[in-house]
Amino acid sequence: MKVAVFPGSFDPITIGHVSLIKRAARLFDKVIIAIGVNTSKNKLFPLDVRIKWIRDVFEKNKKIEVQEFDGLTVDFCKKVGANFIIRGLRNASDFDYEKTIAQLNSELNKDIETVLFMTKPKHSHISSTIVREIIRVKGDASMLVPKQVDLNYKED
Amino acid sequence: MKVAVFPGSFDPITIGHVSLIKRAARLFDKVIIAIGVNTSKNKLFPLDVRIKWIRDVFEKNKKIEVQEFDGLTVDFCKKVGANFIIRGLRNASDFDYEKTIAQLNSELNKDIETVLFMTKPKHSHISSTIVREIIRVKGDASMLVPKQVDLNYKED
Amino acid sequence: MKVAVFPGSFDPITIGHVSLIKRAARLFDKVIIAIGVNTSKNKLFPLDVRIKWIRDVFEKNKKIEVQEFDGLTVDFCKKVGANFIIRGLRNASDFDYEKTIAQLNSELNKDIETVLFMTKPKHSHISSTIVREIIRVKGDASMLVPKQVDLNYKED
Amino acid sequence: MKVAVFPGSFDPITIGHVSLIKRAARLFDKVIIAIGVNTSKNKLFPLDVRIKWIRDVFEKNKKIEVQEFDGLTVDFCKKVGANFIIRGLRNASDFDYEKTIAQLNSELNKDIETVLFMTKPKHSHISSTIVREIIRVKGDASMLVPKQVDLNYKED
Amino acid sequence: MKVAVFPGSFDPITIGHVSLIKRAARLFDKVIIAIGVNTSKNKLFPLDVRIKWIRDVFEKNKKIEVQEFDGLTVDFCKKVGANFIIRGLRNASDFDYEKTIAQLNSELNKDIETVLFMTKPKHSHISSTIVREIIRVKGDASMLVPKQVDLNYKED
Amino acid sequence: MKVAVFPGSFDPITIGHVSLIKRAARLFDKVIIAIGVNTSKNKLFPLDVRIKWIRDVFEKNKKIEVQEFDGLTVDFCKKVGANFIIRGLRNASDFDYEKTIAQLNSELNKDIETVLFMTKPKHSHISSTIVREIIRVKGDASMLVPKQVDLNYKED
Repeated sequence: MKVAVFPGSFDPITIGHVSLIKRAARLFDKVIIAIGVNTSKNKLFPLDVRIKWIRDVFEKNKKIEVQEFDGLTVDFCKKVGANFIIRGLRNASDFDYEKTIAQLNSELNKDIETVLFMTKPKHSHISSTIVREIIRVKGDASMLVPKQVDLNYKED
Repeated sequence: MKVAVFPGSFDPITIGHVSLIKRAARLFDKVIIAIGVNTSKNKLFPLDVRIKWIRDVFEKNKKIEVQEFDGLTVDFCKKVGANFIIRGLRNASDFDYEKTIAQLNSELNKDIETVLFMTKPKHSHISSTIVREIIRVKGDASMLVPKQVDLNYKED
Repeated sequence: MKVAVFPGSFDPITIGHVSLIKRAARLFDKVIIAIGVNTSKNKLFPLDVRIKWIRDVFEKNKKIEVQEFDGLTVDFCKKVGANFIIRGLRNASDFDYEKTIAQLNSELNKDIETVLFMTKPKHSHISSTIVREIIRVKGDASMLVPKQVDLNYKED
Repeated sequence: MKVAVFPGSFDPITIGHVSLIKRAARLFDKVIIAIGVNTSKNKLFPLDVRIKWIRDVFEKNKKIEVQEFDGLTVDFCKKVGANFIIRGLRNASDFDYEKTIAQLNSELNKDIETVLFMTKPKHSHISSTIVREIIRVKGDASMLVPKQVDLNYKED
Repeated sequence: MKVAVFPGSFDPITIGHVSLIKRAARLFDKVIIAIGVNTSKNKLFPLDVRIKWIRDVFEKNKKIEVQEFDGLTVDFCKKVGANFIIRGLRNASDFDYEKTIAQLNSELNKDIETVLFMTKPKHSHISSTIVREIIRVKGDASMLVPKQVDLNYKED
Repeated sequence: MKVAVFPGSFDPITIGHVSLIKRAARLFDKVIIAIGVNTSKNKLFPLDVRIKWIRDVFEKNKKIEVQEFDGLTVDFCKKVGANFIIRGLRNASDFDYEKTIAQLNSELNKDIETVLFMTKPKHSHISSTIVREIIRVKGDASMLVPKQVDLNYKED
């Protein structure tokens, strides 16, 4: 069984992520969306909300799961039996960063291969960062996220 | 009338900005320098000081104005009747970021076009960030800003 | 009157070119599509055919013209009274080449300004080179060119 | 069954290609190395020799085949039942070219997905072009190709 | 005597730094590793510990020294009689940043030349940032630093 | 003695080359400008003319020599006792190509180090290719070459 991990913060998941994950799910037997929890950056949306949104988006696709993890991505891969890490490339600026991470992961664990997909051109301007930036200036970013995401979510 | 908006923080305005704005003013009937005020980043110089410096620099050019704004750049454009956003490109690293923003703005408002100018080579190392960095290490950055900018400004 | 020159080989014109020229025509009073004739590269389609296709595409837009030229682009600009050169940017690889040419043209004639537009994402894979390459392997490239272009054209 | 096509000229195959193909063969059920024969570029080594070398390199791996093809890569994929095209990325300069080709292939046939692998750092300077260039200046390029390749090959 | 300064934070020094410094020491009569102390960024390891590690690494090479400095790099160069600044380039993303800094330093002091070395491919994924990131997620980064560096160091 | 080789075609030498060579001559005891003669590309100016121009440019600087060579650059370095190869970087597009060549040369001969200099911004648009292109369209490129170069040179 070919299992792949797609790591990220998904704060929040975007339609760019959704497109990439669906394309990856055609190639792999299982795709595990992995939300890192020990990153120092402050998050806009709480972990459980981010997970719920992803579950809602993919509830009909049995190949796609979501899990949280801490520690190194390659260690999480080993734990869940994944030999592949999936990453998307939007532009040449993404490339050098992703190459650095792929080279590092390969050094940390030789058995884990990074597989890259090109982002669709119509999605190449979309990132969680852009979504949060639009929210920050009180703009409407709803066209950049799947309908299951509630950008007006506020913690009680 | 062809109106263009040149958005930024201008913390502080540099001679690179001044060169670009003057070149743009040859193409447009009006250029509005637009200082975004709801960005989270801490500013080195207060908004009113940054605005005053820009007014002083361009006081003889009636085509060039400065205004503050909050919210999305495209919404500000609509409010002031501008159909064009001006941006400068210094190097290939700038490119992918600017493409992302231009593509986003085009999606947010189809009527607003982004027009790009190449920074002059002699200015391609200049940015507000570099000016602030030199100030931080107590160096002299006065050759990077127009003479109307007082880098020793301190709030009372 | 603001006149711009859009130089190139247009061998053949693509829907990417058409989109860019129409966007530029909103900013300028006249856009002159300028086909350089003294380039050493062999062309797939004859000059008169390339010109006719462009005329057909823009026949309803009185702001857009097509002319051939030899010599330097900046000299052609001067001859036709244009102060602006238009170029499109598809990706970061385009950027450094375009910067070189813009810097050179600025040195050759200080009065001529290069104005850049970002290619629309849905067109960012389109170039005359790609069209010719598809033709060479006997594929169908008709979705990449305006309907006025006959890719089956053969000289008698 | 997941079938992938790895298209190229392989003039000659390098240790960079070999490494990438072996990595891809861990993910796919079959990898077809596809040598395009209608490209205009002159080749250093004849087609049948290039094919024989590749057969020799992979003779023990039943998942890996080599075929020649003409026409569009996506049409060849359809003919052999492949839904995936494999490409390697060495550096940021490769990226924009590969994005263009992937976007084109996606437009030509929506069912075919491009999957990218990062070249191993120790191979990132290796290409068939570099091998041919070393041969041209009468240097020794044998460390860049698998031992099955005879760089001294001459047609009778 | 040809003296070069290699400025940075070295938080901590990596095997990538060590390789570069040794290569530079073949070209220069003296290489001064210069740790800037007035940067605003919080450091993971204290200055004196970072200095001690570097001293330990290079204790047998009399050409290589380490010093702390505040203020502009070019002013430190002048103070220690250095006419050269050394920098490493890992990838194209590094390039534009380094060009900006080199151009600025050249403007600040015309007598100081920046000399660049390409990072070895096997080190091109290594940076102090990556080391700190691995530490943050409690991974083992010891293969990225010289053995003199104790990544478990804790201030009392 | 520190000897460096600056390889190229110099068809013709430009003011960008001259600037770089003079800067390099401050670092090295000898700089040998090395013109490769077995490259397949047709040259605009004959080898002996290109050599003479370079001799004329640097006749007062005893550290700078010019020689022709065939074969690999690293073999020429060995022959003349040079341990360093000098290259200039104009922009990010140059970078990946130069990295490839530096990595190859390092693999061909571990003792030879590539040392890079940033092109001055005012020269970053200048290359022999641009000079030849201007000549081809009958423009004046004299501001891009040293005065010793006669762009009107014709073989009898």
